[in-house]
Amino acid sequence: MSQPLHTVLRSASKEVVIGSDKPFCVIGERINPTGRRIFQEQLRAGDLSAIERDVAAQVAGGANVLDVNMGVPLTDEAELLVKAIKLVQSLTDLPICIDSSVVEALEAGLAAYQGRALVNSITAEDERMEQILPLVKKYDAAVVALPNDHDEIPMEADKRIELTEKIVRVATQEYGIAIEDIVIDPLAMPIGADPTVGRTALETIQRIHERWGLNMTCGASNVSFGMPGRHALNATWLPMAMTVGMTSAIMDARTPQIVEAVRAADLMLGNDEWGMAWIANHRAKLAAEKAAQEAAAAGIA
Amino acid sequence: MSQPLHTVLRSASKEVVIGSDKPFCVIGERINPTGRRIFQEQLRAGDLSAIERDVAAQVAGGANVLDVNMGVPLTDEAELLVKAIKLVQSLTDLPICIDSSVVEALEAGLAAYQGRALVNSITAEDERMEQILPLVKKYDAAVVALPNDHDEIPMEADKRIELTEKIVRVATQEYGIAIEDIVIDPLAMPIGADPTVGRTALETIQRIHERWGLNMTCGASNVSFGMPGRHALNATWLPMAMTVGMTSAIMDARTPQIVEAVRAADLMLGNDEWGMAWIANHRAKLAAEKAAQEAAAAGIA
Repeated sequence: MSQPLHTVLRSASKEVVIGSDKPFCVIGERINPTGRRIFQEQLRAGDLSAIERDVAAQVAGGANVLDVNMGVPLTDEAELLVKAIKLVQSLTDLPICIDSSVVEALEAGLAAYQGRALVNSITAEDERMEQILPLVKKYDAAVVALPNDHDEIPMEADKRIELTEKIVRVATQEYGIAIEDIVIDPLAMPIGADPTVGRTALETIQRIHERWGLNMTCGASNVSFGMPGRHALNATWLPMAMTVGMTSAIMDARTPQIVEAVRAADLMLGNDEWGMAWIANHRAKLAAEKAAQEAAAAGIA
Repeated sequence: MSQPLHTVLRSASKEVVIGSDKPFCVIGERINPTGRRIFQEQLRAGDLSAIERDVAAQVAGGANVLDVNMGVPLTDEAELLVKAIKLVQSLTDLPICIDSSVVEALEAGLAAYQGRALVNSITAEDERMEQILPLVKKYDAAVVALPNDHDEIPMEADKRIELTEKIVRVATQEYGIAIEDIVIDPLAMPIGADPTVGRTALETIQRIHERWGLNMTCGASNVSFGMPGRHALNATWLPMAMTVGMTSAIMDARTPQIVEAVRAADLMLGNDEWGMAWIANHRAKLAAEKAAQEAAAAGIA
């Protein structure tokens, strides 16, 4: 097995290291207007106040990094993304994952960001790599890369490994990006649409982990799309993926069941030595429950 | 990777197949007096009524097989085990895992059992194999085998693989037991005592799975011994172990969070095609919650 690679992200004052010998990196997915109609309207009207609540909830939930996506139709995405990044950096010292399909927005976001960002994302398509990898290099960032070509998602692990190889080769040899700054998204698809996608994703994760030791991330809520009981499915999926080498996820950091599952898996993998974090979290949970009970009792009395 | 082996267990009227291409086999651990003082006293007095509750709760919780252990000090364990097996078989058609450290009790239990049992357990010690494997063969049962020698539990995966090899060789060549009737317990130790034991167990499971395709089981509650938040730890551990090849566990079948995690992992591994079982369980859960709410509302009104 390859040695674990370490992807280092930073805000102005805080460093987060992603690696298979480190606690899992929880990247909060919430600051994203996709599917949030009211949030979209607020952003269009220049009202960014929902971001304050989203930051607070995800920090409280235990996020290590925050994804920031400002993909709102009919707006100047670059301008909005810069505003959002500055706002988030004024509210928390967590590093940011700058998330956009628009190259100009990524560049503006990178220029405005204080620290070392994670860029979300490139694919194995030549054009996308040509546009974005120079920015990743220029701003000394790390980058999420999806092993798909054109607009097709390969359904076999072999093809994903082949495209990962291409991404690693092009990024390191042609653009001088360090291999540890490439974070692969192995493409976990909805299990409800095809019962084989879980095994395919696990095989892809394991092979990438064993061959390169690369860090990996995924949109963790994807796998349960269309199924009932999504929290339980997501809370089960992440420890399974971690077992074979997944080291981070862009995920729901506000649901305790899911974050708790990830922290339990950290413990089982030996990445929470002597259970110090697990025990501290458990104590904090008990204290919060007790405080809530006392508040409820006081309210009744 | 080896082809999955199928361990077939039966009661008088029901068959359960354990295999890595089948839903995980939940072996209910509850019918066991270890650590249950009141239950021990009842059993000593000939009162087996607690077993009726334990069977009902584990069947309702979704157990596929029930472990029956009657290890009560200062009793005739063989007689008690026979009574318990007959009682359990009168209450449910789930197959039984006959669990004892006493050879005479195992033999009496096997003679009384209607169907094809799982015997719990042998180790790689010659004496234990000599005593129990002829009974496994005579009564056409399957057997749980722990890859440890003398009273020492090897802390390295290499040694466990070596002892598994010995067990497979001796059981198949010297006693004529089919390889698919050997179920290995890879020895998952408490994580609180040593942060490396999770990785060691996972490595052992994966190597046994890849080399032989053997079925595996473990005492699932062991890993969390001494830690807070045990349900969450157990619910995380099982999907992790399943990811690398664990196919059953002797476990808490009465805690919905843990059984639900196992069923979510079945879905992710493609062993619950189209999520038929997952969706049916979810509907049953919603119906039960609704019924409970209506009952509560009726109680208030």
